[in-house]
Amino acid sequence: MKRSPLAPDTFPELPALPGLRFATAATGLRYQGRDDLMLAVLPEGTAVAGVFTRSSTRAAPVLDCQSKILGPSQGAAAFLVNAGNANAFTGRNGTKAVEAIVSRLSEVADVPETRIFTASTGVIGEALDHAAITHHMSDLVERLDDSHVDAAAAAIMTTDTFAKGATRQVAIGDQTVTITGIAKGSGMIAPDMATMLVFLFTDAKIGRADLQNLVSALNQRTFNCITVDSDTSTSDTLLIAATGTSGVDVTDSVGFSSALHDVMIDLAHQVVRDGEGASKFVEITVTGAHSDADARTIGLSVANSPLVKTAIAGEDPNWGRIVMAVGKSGALADRDRLSIKFGDVLVAREGWVAPDYREEDGVAEMKKTDIRIGIDLGLGGGNATVWTCDLTHGYIDINADYRS
Amino acid sequence: MKRSPLAPDTFPELPALPGLRFATAATGLRYQGRDDLMLAVLPEGTAVAGVFTRSSTRAAPVLDCQSKILGPSQGAAAFLVNAGNANAFTGRNGTKAVEAIVSRLSEVADVPETRIFTASTGVIGEALDHAAITHHMSDLVERLDDSHVDAAAAAIMTTDTFAKGATRQVAIGDQTVTITGIAKGSGMIAPDMATMLVFLFTDAKIGRADLQNLVSALNQRTFNCITVDSDTSTSDTLLIAATGTSGVDVTDSVGFSSALHDVMIDLAHQVVRDGEGASKFVEITVTGAHSDADARTIGLSVANSPLVKTAIAGEDPNWGRIVMAVGKSGALADRDRLSIKFGDVLVAREGWVAPDYREEDGVAEMKKTDIRIGIDLGLGGGNATVWTCDLTHGYIDINADYRS
Repeated sequence: MKRSPLAPDTFPELPALPGLRFATAATGLRYQGRDDLMLAVLPEGTAVAGVFTRSSTRAAPVLDCQSKILGPSQGAAAFLVNAGNANAFTGRNGTKAVEAIVSRLSEVADVPETRIFTASTGVIGEALDHAAITHHMSDLVERLDDSHVDAAAAAIMTTDTFAKGATRQVAIGDQTVTITGIAKGSGMIAPDMATMLVFLFTDAKIGRADLQNLVSALNQRTFNCITVDSDTSTSDTLLIAATGTSGVDVTDSVGFSSALHDVMIDLAHQVVRDGEGASKFVEITVTGAHSDADARTIGLSVANSPLVKTAIAGEDPNWGRIVMAVGKSGALADRDRLSIKFGDVLVAREGWVAPDYREEDGVAEMKKTDIRIGIDLGLGGGNATVWTCDLTHGYIDINADYRS
Repeated sequence: MKRSPLAPDTFPELPALPGLRFATAATGLRYQGRDDLMLAVLPEGTAVAGVFTRSSTRAAPVLDCQSKILGPSQGAAAFLVNAGNANAFTGRNGTKAVEAIVSRLSEVADVPETRIFTASTGVIGEALDHAAITHHMSDLVERLDDSHVDAAAAAIMTTDTFAKGATRQVAIGDQTVTITGIAKGSGMIAPDMATMLVFLFTDAKIGRADLQNLVSALNQRTFNCITVDSDTSTSDTLLIAATGTSGVDVTDSVGFSSALHDVMIDLAHQVVRDGEGASKFVEITVTGAHSDADARTIGLSVANSPLVKTAIAGEDPNWGRIVMAVGKSGALADRDRLSIKFGDVLVAREGWVAPDYREEDGVAEMKKTDIRIGIDLGLGGGNATVWTCDLTHGYIDINADYRS
């Protein structure tokens, strides 16, 4: 698969965190010639929190994670991820596979079963051959090392065209805390092979409940504000681990919250930039809505509209389609107070095209690779920003023939 | 534009109804060498009812129709439709254009202004040159004739690749009532040029309130159950006129209701068969849902999923994507009670692939032009059927370059 034209030039340098160790292996379950199994082990005292897909047809590993995320928090912890088979819609066999993997890892790595979180991404409906995974467990644990985060980011890829990583350091008083994350995803999300997975690590010290509240809130403004194709995965998983090894308490720290937001938005944007067939990165900012929720509804209605997305692919400043997508959203809108901008160009206002708008100015904005669309409702103080990509022939190519 | 491969072979013979007269003309506003203006005039005593888009950015003619639909019902009535310019998002000028057209038609045709209903379909955001329309009014009225229904169906087309008509006759006691309809639409809906418009005519006798209740209820099961691309027009309009000239009272007649349903579903299917880029016609039947509303939500979630639609385009029996679309819908579903069929082939049941399912059987179903997908939730008695088409390169071709 050709690297996305929107990909960053290089994978960032991700600093090692004390006590956080990675290992990867090749199961051969689906891919040949690459690693597709990733283990991360975290030291005792690590707080773990997570956010999961709300799909009612959730995969077995997601259900297992959800049952554990509020459970006992003593002992080491581990994240185990395989790429190529989602272990989703696999009936009772799905649960058995998760149990077998968790049990074996617990034995070999001396991590309590209740602290082992797994994620699987890949084809839906095929039984996961768990022996092909447990077979590698001793070897994986022996090779655990703090320098393998690049290999970890690559091992969890499926239709991704580039590995995704981000990091920030933040000064808290005279000390420094580090946040590092890796993600995979190439749609919001293709359930076959583009499920979104996100793993975040920090040496900060924070209680589990505070960590959960923080990551849930930030998730609403980051990963829950991106869409490639409006399809929601059965396996979406975000896990965050705070090891506390820095000794720096970040409870209620605005600096930490802001740095974590930056890592999450960085990874979220990378997922959009790897959207299937994407040739444009699109930021949609909605202001003046009746509420923040309305603003997000309108933003996602525009971001998910096939007609808006194909117009962007065609570099057509087709603001009529944006009016349509605002109108269909179900959120409060008044046609005659609505205004629309492409970049800094005012296109429409007061229910009609802006008097100074020139088509060539709109076209110039649409020729850019990164497109900004501004929508002001003129009703209240609600606002939201969402991100998406365009809808191109590449998306049809990838998805019309995926399994064949 | 090439005729859709899913189009019917011929336009049906639509019988004339006493007192119902049509005329068409060419304004040259957008199209050259074809008629793009349609007038239908109905006799005194005609009951008119309608259903309109719920978009909050509705076009001026829609707002005008909605303000009149419950108004005075004395005198003749008329429907006037132009294709090429939607008169949508045109500010106060939009209202003025409607007023000018209605006023002139009322004068020339001797129809009360309150009984003139207009619809416009075409590009959004361009001022409608109403003089180009009023200019033709005397000539149109002079040429009114009861035999021009084919020309009327053709004059309202935009990106449609074929004219759409349907008719049914129904015996009520020893008398016969006729229902005739024409429609346009080529997406559910492209707001530029594929807005859905439907005009239904019958010589049956029925009060306006009963007619409105009937058409609203049937609309829920017909036009509100089709989708091409999940986008909702600013101009969708359905108008029905019951002239009463047959003298046959059809109030509470099951036969009439059933015949009207047949005409509406026939036209609704024709709109899907003319879906932009469509190569497959898809019927999705949802049973066993918690409620009918849940069944419809699930059906539309599947019908609108880009991943399901691209899989169908690729003739891939990718039932995992159907599981995904059921899961994301927000309606009640239990993964382990869900079963899925392609045609009569049981693909998945009890949370996993069916034991007897063979991939070649699924592929054989997907090779057909008309595809049936059955989804049973195993939860209750709610059911719904929705119709859609696949998502192909043709859709991208049409919509990425529409205005250029």
